[in-house]
Amino acid sequence: MRTFLIGSMLFVLSSLAAAQSQSQSQAQLNLMPMPASVQPGSGQLAITQSFSVSVTGVRGASLGSAVERFQDQLSRQTGIPFRPKAGGSPALEIHADRGLDAVQKLGEDESYELTVTDSGAKLTAPTSLGAMHGLETFLQLVQITPTGFAVPAVTIKDQPRFPWRGLMFDVSRHFIPIDVLKRNLDGMAAVKMNVMHWHLSDDQGFRAESRVFPKLTGMGSAGQYYTQDEIRDIIAYAHDRGIRVIPEFDIPGHSTAWFVGYPELASAPGPYKLERRGGVFDATMDPTREETYKFLEKFIAEMTRLFPDAYFHIGGDEVNGKQWDSNPKIQAFMHSHGMKNNQDLQAYFNQRVQKIVARNHKIMVGWDEVLHPDLPKTIIVQSWRGQESLATAAKQGYSGLLSYGYYLDLMWPAARHYAIEPMSDAAATLSPEEKNRILGGESCQWAEWVTPENIDSHIWPRNAVIAERLWSPQSVTDVTSMYTRMSAVSLDLEWLGLTHRSARMHMLHRMAGTADISALRVFADVVEPVKDYGRGDDESTPDFDAPLTHMIDAVYPESDTARQFAGLVQTYLQSGAKDQASETQIRAWLALWRDNDAKLHPLLDQSFLLQEDAPLSQELSALGAAGLQALDFFDKSQPAPGAWKTQQLALIEQAKKPAAGLLLMVAAPIQQLIEAGGQPAKTGP
Amino acid sequence: MRTFLIGSMLFVLSSLAAAQSQSQSQAQLNLMPMPASVQPGSGQLAITQSFSVSVTGVRGASLGSAVERFQDQLSRQTGIPFRPKAGGSPALEIHADRGLDAVQKLGEDESYELTVTDSGAKLTAPTSLGAMHGLETFLQLVQITPTGFAVPAVTIKDQPRFPWRGLMFDVSRHFIPIDVLKRNLDGMAAVKMNVMHWHLSDDQGFRAESRVFPKLTGMGSAGQYYTQDEIRDIIAYAHDRGIRVIPEFDIPGHSTAWFVGYPELASAPGPYKLERRGGVFDATMDPTREETYKFLEKFIAEMTRLFPDAYFHIGGDEVNGKQWDSNPKIQAFMHSHGMKNNQDLQAYFNQRVQKIVARNHKIMVGWDEVLHPDLPKTIIVQSWRGQESLATAAKQGYSGLLSYGYYLDLMWPAARHYAIEPMSDAAATLSPEEKNRILGGESCQWAEWVTPENIDSHIWPRNAVIAERLWSPQSVTDVTSMYTRMSAVSLDLEWLGLTHRSARMHMLHRMAGTADISALRVFADVVEPVKDYGRGDDESTPDFDAPLTHMIDAVYPESDTARQFAGLVQTYLQSGAKDQASETQIRAWLALWRDNDAKLHPLLDQSFLLQEDAPLSQELSALGAAGLQALDFFDKSQPAPGAWKTQQLALIEQAKKPAAGLLLMVAAPIQQLIEAGGQPAKTGP
Repeated sequence: MRTFLIGSMLFVLSSLAAAQSQSQSQAQLNLMPMPASVQPGSGQLAITQSFSVSVTGVRGASLGSAVERFQDQLSRQTGIPFRPKAGGSPALEIHADRGLDAVQKLGEDESYELTVTDSGAKLTAPTSLGAMHGLETFLQLVQITPTGFAVPAVTIKDQPRFPWRGLMFDVSRHFIPIDVLKRNLDGMAAVKMNVMHWHLSDDQGFRAESRVFPKLTGMGSAGQYYTQDEIRDIIAYAHDRGIRVIPEFDIPGHSTAWFVGYPELASAPGPYKLERRGGVFDATMDPTREETYKFLEKFIAEMTRLFPDAYFHIGGDEVNGKQWDSNPKIQAFMHSHGMKNNQDLQAYFNQRVQKIVARNHKIMVGWDEVLHPDLPKTIIVQSWRGQESLATAAKQGYSGLLSYGYYLDLMWPAARHYAIEPMSDAAATLSPEEKNRILGGESCQWAEWVTPENIDSHIWPRNAVIAERLWSPQSVTDVTSMYTRMSAVSLDLEWLGLTHRSARMHMLHRMAGTADISALRVFADVVEPVKDYGRGDDESTPDFDAPLTHMIDAVYPESDTARQFAGLVQTYLQSGAKDQASETQIRAWLALWRDNDAKLHPLLDQSFLLQEDAPLSQELSALGAAGLQALDFFDKSQPAPGAWKTQQLALIEQAKKPAAGLLLMVAAPIQQLIEAGGQPAKTGP
Repeated sequence: MRTFLIGSMLFVLSSLAAAQSQSQSQAQLNLMPMPASVQPGSGQLAITQSFSVSVTGVRGASLGSAVERFQDQLSRQTGIPFRPKAGGSPALEIHADRGLDAVQKLGEDESYELTVTDSGAKLTAPTSLGAMHGLETFLQLVQITPTGFAVPAVTIKDQPRFPWRGLMFDVSRHFIPIDVLKRNLDGMAAVKMNVMHWHLSDDQGFRAESRVFPKLTGMGSAGQYYTQDEIRDIIAYAHDRGIRVIPEFDIPGHSTAWFVGYPELASAPGPYKLERRGGVFDATMDPTREETYKFLEKFIAEMTRLFPDAYFHIGGDEVNGKQWDSNPKIQAFMHSHGMKNNQDLQAYFNQRVQKIVARNHKIMVGWDEVLHPDLPKTIIVQSWRGQESLATAAKQGYSGLLSYGYYLDLMWPAARHYAIEPMSDAAATLSPEEKNRILGGESCQWAEWVTPENIDSHIWPRNAVIAERLWSPQSVTDVTSMYTRMSAVSLDLEWLGLTHRSARMHMLHRMAGTADISALRVFADVVEPVKDYGRGDDESTPDFDAPLTHMIDAVYPESDTARQFAGLVQTYLQSGAKDQASETQIRAWLALWRDNDAKLHPLLDQSFLLQEDAPLSQELSALGAAGLQALDFFDKSQPAPGAWKTQQLALIEQAKKPAAGLLLMVAAPIQQLIEAGGQPAKTGP
């Protein structure tokens, strides 16, 4: 038995070692989205100055420029100006059977296989679309090692879980210039997203040039719109990166911008002017006048020629019906047509619009509200309401997309988006055929609170985890791994020109007016913007013309520092307050925060943009001090006195209230320290 | 006497107060270059969303685009999207009498007057060139205040001290792309420099397209060159910003790149290939063959048409004469023409070239070595040798430019460049007429060790202090004020798109391969690259195709942290080790450094780019510990034991040696602490 035991123990140990080594090698592969299958090999392929690429099979223009972009990005990531040796054998061989179609289709084969050994890499794919995805995987595999840049030996077989993986840009609330869209398209390609949904009109601005109806932008855009040439440029740019472009013109609600130039389209008399704040407004198209459809007929014909993709989004969300309710002609129309309510009227409108869209050989997409049994099953429903809504649609035969849970403007932590599973809840109970109708999803960047300066930080890196949810197998759910990989991919994204990390530094300098912003950074590192719609959209909030230059506009949606600190506190308390290494680190953080307000305060006073942060900065210092006192009780193995606890918890309550739109994210873990106060493990009630 | 004393003391105190208040108001005006005359007013002009500009007088295109650029930059600096009120009165009125000439001339009136009150600002100038300078001053005046962005009330009358204030770009050693040149032209305009000297050919590459001699770039550029269209684009871009563009084609030395395609021009038989390292090479044009001049005749005719400026730079530096010495035909030529040495032969060459340049209606510029009595007094000598050389030329009737002391590639601290006064030493003794011949100067960005990624940090912000030296009155020399203002202007420059501060962060991330680079930043903050030509240019150094991605390539040429720390140590020791506030800060720094290696070490081991920094990181920790021990002796008022001192000073000697091309800049102030070791004031021998 002794022998057996030793044998078992050796087995256990070697299993542990294998598991550890595998987990290390997994940790080393900072891939996001995680591929369908990853088999680690041994050794690594060195990335040297003579690195070169060869392409066989298809040599379409798209793959050609993809290889060029790949080499540029590899050069930025590594700093190596590549000089392939004449006659040298290529380090990466690419083979794709087919090139990109002139217009990319939903459901194309996006699979690829990538094999890396210490002597070279091979990337094969049925389509150049798949090959492009493989190139992005290769870029993410590149890592710095003690001997140089290298890609670890690995065999990857990959394909997406869902065929529709999109990001919606609202460009109405705040206009987003072409160059900003382009760098975000680069980011989307890097995480294998394949749909750009372009929300081009809303109450605050009409952003796409119409030559048939020039007053749409002429009067409805305040001069901020895309010309048709610019739109074609974006479509070509996206197509080069394997990304389809779906335009959305939101009707019949969210349509104030149409009515500034064409008030006759509305359900109540004008004049109209652009809205300058967020919210749901009354302005709604009149579905009862034939002139409305004549207008839309011409407009949709023009736009469907401009946008080559097979899908055309008509919005359809959030019609409050007030203009319909108060218009006697519309009421009479509804009565004479036997319509029971506004939903029926909107369904009538949608049917009419759907026929126009279909006559122009496009498939209509709309938000949840368009779902109505009178519409053909070909349409697609985009759900902001949730999996329940999606499942209902699928059961009725409609295809759907999930956007619920993927609203980037709600300032959720990455883990919360990551946990949103399209096939969960009601969707999990669908039949296989019904499940197939769930095509994927889209993250949404609603633009109430973004400018070209800070939009990247609202999208990235969190959008990468939504991309993973839509690409990777459903089983890929480990949150710790996700954060590690997201952090690595975030760095790569900055090499593409995205400014999601660097913009904050510039904005902090602006607020401070000085070069030394170290204390301000300590503060900015532990706060997050308020969540959901906490920022409000009533008359008391600044309008969309106002600068977005406060701390709430500069900080990252999620605080890495707070998350890591919470992890340390967790480890420490779980160790029964015995883990010295954790305690040392916790103390260092707490002392930094305790001492920060004294350094920061003079700066805050001098700046109109920072004064509002003074109370929170003081509270951070108080929290630091309280946390240190809590640790002292642990060190002395004394339970903290009740009066002290009560006092500190009052402080915590205060510190948890948002101030200047900010949340102090270290309040909760410090609360844990205080509540445990000197008593490492709970000992009954 | 008592009354008198009190009176005196009051006077002294009020003088102090006045001086302090003036110094405060001066400190608030973060202007660089400092204007000729600044009269502070009272109050401030608020910069709000309705801020607008009006232009009267000239409405030339150049001023028009200057106003647009001004508004863009103001918007970036403040984050305000300006929305001028219809019918509102402009906050800034600009009047210029004359527009820019199609080709800008040396010595144009660049003066302007800017008056700011709490109700508005007026900018007047004889030329739109002056008005552009005034706009840059206005941008530098914008500051954040407790009530908003504002410009303090002030009256500024300004004009440059020297008419020629240039920056030379070497684009041969490392090619610098168009977009990088453009953002640096923006930076030059911001600090009122008015000459871009474009060093377009050297042993390592020929960078300007010649249609007459296509092999110059076809064989001599490795594909890295500017087309004539791109050159015209840069000239127009510079002209828009009041910057003249002077091309330099360096002959007869530094000319290997010519000979790759045209070996017959050389003084020794080919074939030639591009040099890939720095240094002075043998390849030299043959000044004895008429074919050489026929070639140059055609080439210069083409280039002088391409570059509209009146000046044309022929280089002329560092001819080592080896090819001439060893070519019998050249020796025979020299003998038959009665030439005593190679200097005579080069003078003959220069005369011939000068005549070609003059026939093309241009004035020749050359480096020191071209100075020879046989050349006409119209030429301009650019001195890399110093004020002595400049004075000699001026006495002989030649105009001159100073570049000695302004070589940005030598990695000097800003203060050292700042101290280089063109009119000092021999130049100070010149007659007024001779002094007038000193036209100004140029900073030089030799490109042995720069890439598009790090070039901005080699130029900025230090170039701003050279710009000040050439623009501001000779009396403007206060180094403390200079550093304060340079730091502020440096932030503004990043809003223009320069990456002199932000690039380091990306490069540190690349080296580390991780998101958390805090310990690496602590290290990078206290090191500087070796100075002068310490990096070497022999076969053991990497060639110019190699990546520049090590710590030496990423760090700033001057460590702000080290300079500030040295100041703290100075204050502390001068206080007789009594200044507790300084000691607290010094201790915080020393503890940070002492503890840094433990955090940094694991990272260094993982990266081939960082391993070389391990010894220096250890030394930094040792220095931190040693400094803290020295402070302990002060605190105990004990003289440090001799053995301890000896040991620590040995450590200092070691730490002062460059490692991985880096200097540990805090070694010297820590040495001061150790040497003073426990004995605050020296008490005799």
